[in-house]
Amino acid sequence: MRETAGKQAQYGAGERRVKTRDRILQAARELFNEQGEAHVTLAHIGEHLGISEGNVWYHFRTKHDLILALFAEVQQRVKAQQQRDLSHLRQLSDVRDMFVEEFHLMWEYRFLFQDHVDLIVTLPELHEQLVEITMQGHAYIKRVLARLCLIGLLQIKNSEMDPLATNIWIINRYWIDYCQTRSKQRQVTEQDFQEGMQQIRTLLLPYFTSGLGGRTLMNGEAG
Amino acid sequence: MRETAGKQAQYGAGERRVKTRDRILQAARELFNEQGEAHVTLAHIGEHLGISEGNVWYHFRTKHDLILALFAEVQQRVKAQQQRDLSHLRQLSDVRDMFVEEFHLMWEYRFLFQDHVDLIVTLPELHEQLVEITMQGHAYIKRVLARLCLIGLLQIKNSEMDPLATNIWIINRYWIDYCQTRSKQRQVTEQDFQEGMQQIRTLLLPYFTSGLGGRTLMNGEAG
Repeated sequence: MRETAGKQAQYGAGERRVKTRDRILQAARELFNEQGEAHVTLAHIGEHLGISEGNVWYHFRTKHDLILALFAEVQQRVKAQQQRDLSHLRQLSDVRDMFVEEFHLMWEYRFLFQDHVDLIVTLPELHEQLVEITMQGHAYIKRVLARLCLIGLLQIKNSEMDPLATNIWIINRYWIDYCQTRSKQRQVTEQDFQEGMQQIRTLLLPYFTSGLGGRTLMNGEAG
Repeated sequence: MRETAGKQAQYGAGERRVKTRDRILQAARELFNEQGEAHVTLAHIGEHLGISEGNVWYHFRTKHDLILALFAEVQQRVKAQQQRDLSHLRQLSDVRDMFVEEFHLMWEYRFLFQDHVDLIVTLPELHEQLVEITMQGHAYIKRVLARLCLIGLLQIKNSEMDPLATNIWIINRYWIDYCQTRSKQRQVTEQDFQEGMQQIRTLLLPYFTSGLGGRTLMNGEAG
């Protein structure tokens, strides 16, 4: 959220507190992603931001509070994405944009998805929330596939709907992790995201009602 | 390796040392899998086995030595699997057995595949080895697909070979992790492995030269 100087002055200390909280969340997310959650302490986060550990502690008493706050953030963003009206899905380029957006979200919060085994041991309540994200993700992909069938772009047998949705979810969910273990380069680029899309296209290819769709989905032309 | 009482007596102390080393490796693997590697110390492993921490230390000076020894184990097993002559692949049930075997291996060493982000931070040399396993896995799946095309069970365009092999690798590699985040049950069962096979079958289905193959692969009849 960008604020003007005037607004900052108006809100005063309260506003600064809110902004510090946001800065802590962002720094924590970045450090957890870069260094692994287990290797980062509240002191590191304070040091990274040039503020005291006490100031971090004022906003988050424990690292667990921080992790849960970051998980709430990602849940809210996933929910916002998934509650969108799918009637806007009229062409395959819309689907491509949707999946690329998902890849970006997974990248921004990758420590939650990659360190989750470790996290679940210390924060068992996270497991339930991860299960919820998985189930919602699966249901959402099924709704997208149903929509693409409805508008005649895809044709999928009922019996194949669930396994196909599961495969799409797994490729979408683990693509970043895969990219980081197929090369020594841990940074994932926009090109990797595009390639992830190509993998999802490979999954959909057998179900296109015409040869056109597959090409369109890849090349970003209107479908 | 099972030993008779006579053999144990014959080998004496040297043999006991070897067996202690194996027991430590097995206990470490199980504890790392159950509790996450970061939460397990050499002392825990000793306690679990009813031996002193000093005895563990005699075999492995640090936890890193233990992790690297377990990684060497998994590498050796993967290599043995992948060096097999593929000319025995004559029917689809052979392929099913092969993937189920892979699922079991991933399950036995799951901490290496699930905690890998954390592990790479503390043991950067692991990253290179994980990259190697990924590349070898991909190459192996391509050889299997080529074999299935050669014997006329599948028909795959050259341009679709790589993306298909990548999708199969990702489903095979992350299936266990997925099972653990789709339900609160962290234990993965034989039924989950069978379902994982069904997901791989969904990937292959569009490439079967006859309708028969897909059913055969699933039901375990000779293909």
